Amino acid sequence: MQRPAAVYELKNFALDPYNLKLNEVLFHNSNGYIGVRYDFEEGYYDGFEYFRSQYINGVYDFAPVNQPEALHGLVREKQIMLNIADTQSIRLFIDGEEFSMFTGTILESSLSLHMEKGVTVRRVIWRSPTGKELELTITRMTSFHQLTLFTIEYEIKPLNFSGSIFIESGHDVDVANFYDPSDPRNLGEPVECLQPISVEIKDDASYISTSTIKSNLRICSGVKHLISQDTEFEFWVNNDSALCRFGLQAVREQPIKMIKYAVFCDSVRFANCRKQAIIEMDKAMTIPLQQLYRKQEEYLSEYWRNCLVEIDGDDESHLAMRYNLYQLIQSVGKDIHSNIAPKGLSGEGYEGHFFWDTEIYIQPYFTITNPSISKNLIEFRYVTLDLARENARRMGHERGALYPWRTIMGRECSGFFPAGSAQYHINGDIAYSIIAYYLATKDLDFILHQGAEIIFETARIWLDTGNFYQGKFHINSVTGPDEYTCVVNNNYYTNVMAQYHLRWAEKFYYILQGVPQFTKLTEKIALTEDEIRSFALAADQMYLTYDEELNINPQDDSFLQKSKWDISLIPKNKFPLLSNYHPLYLYRYQICKQADTVLAYFLLEDAQPEEVMRNSFLYYEKITTHDSSLSLCIFSIMAARLGMIEKSFQYFGDSIKLDLMDLHGNTDDGIHTANMAGSYLAVVYGFGGFRLKEQGISFAPILPVNWNSYLFKICYEDSHLRVEVHPQQCIFTLESGSAQRILVYGKEYLLEDRLVIPRNNAADYRSDPADRSGGDL
Amino acid sequence: MQRPAAVYELKNFALDPYNLKLNEVLFHNSNGYIGVRYDFEEGYYDGFEYFRSQYINGVYDFAPVNQPEALHGLVREKQIMLNIADTQSIRLFIDGEEFSMFTGTILESSLSLHMEKGVTVRRVIWRSPTGKELELTITRMTSFHQLTLFTIEYEIKPLNFSGSIFIESGHDVDVANFYDPSDPRNLGEPVECLQPISVEIKDDASYISTSTIKSNLRICSGVKHLISQDTEFEFWVNNDSALCRFGLQAVREQPIKMIKYAVFCDSVRFANCRKQAIIEMDKAMTIPLQQLYRKQEEYLSEYWRNCLVEIDGDDESHLAMRYNLYQLIQSVGKDIHSNIAPKGLSGEGYEGHFFWDTEIYIQPYFTITNPSISKNLIEFRYVTLDLARENARRMGHERGALYPWRTIMGRECSGFFPAGSAQYHINGDIAYSIIAYYLATKDLDFILHQGAEIIFETARIWLDTGNFYQGKFHINSVTGPDEYTCVVNNNYYTNVMAQYHLRWAEKFYYILQGVPQFTKLTEKIALTEDEIRSFALAADQMYLTYDEELNINPQDDSFLQKSKWDISLIPKNKFPLLSNYHPLYLYRYQICKQADTVLAYFLLEDAQPEEVMRNSFLYYEKITTHDSSLSLCIFSIMAARLGMIEKSFQYFGDSIKLDLMDLHGNTDDGIHTANMAGSYLAVVYGFGGFRLKEQGISFAPILPVNWNSYLFKICYEDSHLRVEVHPQQCIFTLESGSAQRILVYGKEYLLEDRLVIPRNNAADYRSDPADRSGGDL
Repeated sequence: MQRPAAVYELKNFALDPYNLKLNEVLFHNSNGYIGVRYDFEEGYYDGFEYFRSQYINGVYDFAPVNQPEALHGLVREKQIMLNIADTQSIRLFIDGEEFSMFTGTILESSLSLHMEKGVTVRRVIWRSPTGKELELTITRMTSFHQLTLFTIEYEIKPLNFSGSIFIESGHDVDVANFYDPSDPRNLGEPVECLQPISVEIKDDASYISTSTIKSNLRICSGVKHLISQDTEFEFWVNNDSALCRFGLQAVREQPIKMIKYAVFCDSVRFANCRKQAIIEMDKAMTIPLQQLYRKQEEYLSEYWRNCLVEIDGDDESHLAMRYNLYQLIQSVGKDIHSNIAPKGLSGEGYEGHFFWDTEIYIQPYFTITNPSISKNLIEFRYVTLDLARENARRMGHERGALYPWRTIMGRECSGFFPAGSAQYHINGDIAYSIIAYYLATKDLDFILHQGAEIIFETARIWLDTGNFYQGKFHINSVTGPDEYTCVVNNNYYTNVMAQYHLRWAEKFYYILQGVPQFTKLTEKIALTEDEIRSFALAADQMYLTYDEELNINPQDDSFLQKSKWDISLIPKNKFPLLSNYHPLYLYRYQICKQADTVLAYFLLEDAQPEEVMRNSFLYYEKITTHDSSLSLCIFSIMAARLGMIEKSFQYFGDSIKLDLMDLHGNTDDGIHTANMAGSYLAVVYGFGGFRLKEQGISFAPILPVNWNSYLFKICYEDSHLRVEVHPQQCIFTLESGSAQRILVYGKEYLLEDRLVIPRNNAADYRSDPADRSGGDL
Repeated sequence: MQRPAAVYELKNFALDPYNLKLNEVLFHNSNGYIGVRYDFEEGYYDGFEYFRSQYINGVYDFAPVNQPEALHGLVREKQIMLNIADTQSIRLFIDGEEFSMFTGTILESSLSLHMEKGVTVRRVIWRSPTGKELELTITRMTSFHQLTLFTIEYEIKPLNFSGSIFIESGHDVDVANFYDPSDPRNLGEPVECLQPISVEIKDDASYISTSTIKSNLRICSGVKHLISQDTEFEFWVNNDSALCRFGLQAVREQPIKMIKYAVFCDSVRFANCRKQAIIEMDKAMTIPLQQLYRKQEEYLSEYWRNCLVEIDGDDESHLAMRYNLYQLIQSVGKDIHSNIAPKGLSGEGYEGHFFWDTEIYIQPYFTITNPSISKNLIEFRYVTLDLARENARRMGHERGALYPWRTIMGRECSGFFPAGSAQYHINGDIAYSIIAYYLATKDLDFILHQGAEIIFETARIWLDTGNFYQGKFHINSVTGPDEYTCVVNNNYYTNVMAQYHLRWAEKFYYILQGVPQFTKLTEKIALTEDEIRSFALAADQMYLTYDEELNINPQDDSFLQKSKWDISLIPKNKFPLLSNYHPLYLYRYQICKQADTVLAYFLLEDAQPEEVMRNSFLYYEKITTHDSSLSLCIFSIMAARLGMIEKSFQYFGDSIKLDLMDLHGNTDDGIHTANMAGSYLAVVYGFGGFRLKEQGISFAPILPVNWNSYLFKICYEDSHLRVEVHPQQCIFTLESGSAQRILVYGKEYLLEDRLVIPRNNAADYRSDPADRSGGDL
């Protein structure tokens, strides 16, 4: 199987505003701690509006949430991710002519992301207005080895001249945050967050200490230059910037190299972030850049070993998948102070908040490839459990914990509660991810020390939210994932997730009973067996919507009595509907931003007979707009699950290239991390038919017609599995760890070394062929 | 029947902050055009926080509505009633000692509202710190004869001294608006509205022209003094005030009198309001104040003749009823540019917006006592019909008109739409009031020229909002009057009102068919008979919730499946619940701020069998908190209707004194006009059993046990009826107009002159005695 190099490259890339902004995101550098958008070091042209942007994961300022009416308990303050010190700026002057992509002539250019090396490279051959030609190679890296470090390796090669070169390299905290009053998915008004405290020059480095204005967090950034020629640095220091200037002598054909190191430390992690910035800078100086590059590659090599997906016969999808998985490891927080935002660290969309995307879209990926990352994401929730308890009190619950719908440091940031705080399923989502982590790792110790407390405290909210009515347990007045219908009763997704959550609360209780540490926990949170029995009863009696006539699960109690609205008759410019219709208007229709019932089938397929899932899938397919980027991948998975292979592949194709092709038209606000993970899920859970359940793991691979073959890796308990899917056979290889029992096409095998199993037509296996007529997409 | 004088008086009234603020409202002066809170002319004491407040009905500034998330179609700007020029201030100095209620000694004091004279009087006998005694008598009037005019007659009588007196009388536009960030019923943040344009002195009067900052409305106020002694005026003019100072010689026992005239003109009504202010001031000067007082009394004499309610045997209720009806004529707008706000012109609660309170609580009173006022209120809606069309578009409707939930000039001001714009019943409420006006007056000409267009345009919204499902017409995702449950399906109140609305749309269509003017209208709004048939079909098939087991009408589709919450177990300090629980928490319970199903029974009693209404009443009674001031009166009416006389009287008692006894603890924000009208409805519709229907008018009077008798007046078609209810008999008198057929206790009579009908026990008449066990309140 030969695959293309792991490089995403644009040659002679476009320089129009649309592409400039898109590329800021597509080529941003991040390591889960710092994120730097791809702004041209030298700047742009007059009149091009942009924000030089860089962020630290988990660092926030507070901003007011303006409520139109002061109803009790509404959120009045939110956290927002903020722009920190800009260290990207490098201006280059050759005998007085300033380099710019917008003057002179670009003879050649390329922009590339090297996904095995973990760097981005811009290469430009430029002819100045007076005819001087030079080649610039600019390599940027946010280091996985040293999370605080961002480097720019700036190589200048004079092609047809010798002369004097002058460089002005910036370090500046006069930054602003992006806002867009017209788009609910962005910050709505300008908010100033960062104030300078001090600017210092020390050992040829500049250090700028800053403080966030309202949250009073400290951030210190340091910048230092190493240059291949001896030169004098001159610093121009201001109260909010330090400009480093120096001259060089260029000789034709002789490359000159400058490395700009930038380190960032914040008071969320470090007691003294100024001191730490100096330590981090010194640390970066101890090893040559080439060695840092090697460490970067090693880190990624280990990553790819665990998660690699290879697709033979569809280079585009192969590359896009790589790209997506690369963005996920770039974006995910590496410590308990951070999580992974819908836009990662590539933009300010959704104000940098963490949502359920983490648990339902992204963790299913990490849990089976890099479970330690999943564990870290759960630890983030554990660290914020007390704030989730506070949040539950705010919402009226006297006991238990309700996680915020959107947050950075753990406090709720949702302003319009019907589409935010009302999404109680967040509790079930977090429980689901903990259960999945346990199923994949059997890490009971983690459950004992962190997971169980979350699961019990969040389960309590279901009992206080729902009530028995006519013998069944109803959950009223909550909002499911589909925000085109808000504050409904018995949302199928919510109820089935709550049921699973409550059942596992009971299971964990009896699994852990008797363990001394567990007794301490039950005492701490005053959990009794009686309460566990009430959990079990609610789970047993959980009301799940079902319509006999259509043989489907309606999205909620009243979904089917609402008006129908033929999506095909809605003009294209009316999408996304949320940008063109009052929410109340949308609530009145059977129309979905994403179909949460279909999502529930993916997560908990055993809750319904196949036929109900199929009928529902076909029902919701007609009324789902996919205005949410969380939608396509799930339809792909469920189409595959239900034997509609062609359709599954079409959904997958839209999902996997959503950002690379900017299919939602808003990638300039940031990548869509949940969809990126979703595209992985579409391959592994969708085509591969992988499932992780209490009974073990199972596979039922199908092969899209235009693919020759594909492979993926799974990490399960202490084992690493490799799965290859060929036209005639599936090859399962135990790459390391213990032998594992696996279920393939419903039949159990013991995977000790390598298993070759004839490829089944999964659709035949899974369903009656007569049912496969899912219709065209 | 001897009744107490029509004076509400407080002797030696309290001067603590609570009572000072309460009395600002209880003794405010208003005429429906201007409203002036009762601020002491001389001011208060250092540290007492208050706003000198005066308003013009229908004059507004714009203020931003801060939305936490920029969802499509949300309201981003509202109108707010604003504080206009303060003309109340009069400081009095006697030989250098300044009069204040908070220095020296108050030997006697009284504050009184004269409801036949239409003035308030403050009388104070004061001993200064150095022992000078004087009697002050301050009479304030907002003239019904000349709506722009407010007068203060200020009489000073030196009791034990002669000496020099110095007066400083203010006219000041440096005013502010009240706000309270903690209460959703008030403006949440400071908003500055008024800016001065010019201050002029002309003919011994000061005129200050101002402009509202955002809406750019002009207001000019003029102030002039007439004094019983010859004196020189000295004006101190500033850019936002004009202080008039003058000295007088006081002689022991000789009263000195000053009259301060203030006129207010605004650009909503007057093309040149500065010019008009001068005209109005000149007009006020043409007749002596005593004659203005007489005109005031004449106006009120006519008013009382039409609406008087007399209660014998319960002086408290008698006086409170007078007080309430007085406030209604004070508060109601007298032109098409204004309406009646929930707080009238007595305070800034609800930001001076007009709500459905007008149509459902206040118009049923005016329609049967002063139908021309009702007509004016409907005309206000007609004038704003185009804005209601715009509002419908904002909400997604391509045709029809949706009235704003709260407004001053016709544009929606509701910020949190689930409890605001989602209250589509506003359309049905307005239609109901038009139909009632027609039933009471048979003024078909008005229907032809204004009413019908409103009724058809608003009826269209039902067709676009609701949909047929399983053969019935459902109205989904709207909010009923009860705001403790928002965005529900098939709210009984909404659906039954929509049904009535649609039926009358059909009726009016066929009544008016063939009238040339009507043909023009149908062409103008493109109304066809097909559309009328669709109205009729929706009305016929309207789905009305009904629970067979309980034999009640549930508030909405899912009301009964929600949790029960025993009101008696909720601590007293948790009321009103809206101030102590997150709205979403409340949505999840069977708990009502007001029971809208019970309200629907009052408005449309023929829609349900008596037994269903009784069961429902008893069901909702247990779960209604009456946190809304719109609730008690309706429970009183329906308790009477259902034969629970004792209970009815208890509800009435709380309703009628709600403001006078500050039972909701927020009368300092303003009176509760809807409840005031509601207390009238409780007597006439409740105890009197009055109903106005297509078939005619009917009565079924009951007599509360502690009353000797009561009487009320009804204006119907061209007739004025007087109804006296005595223990043994009811006396119906035709005071003027044509003979009328009336139904009394279900039997038809022709009222030509006077009818004496034995008093029935209405409860016996109306219901099976076995059903009367309504339980204790």
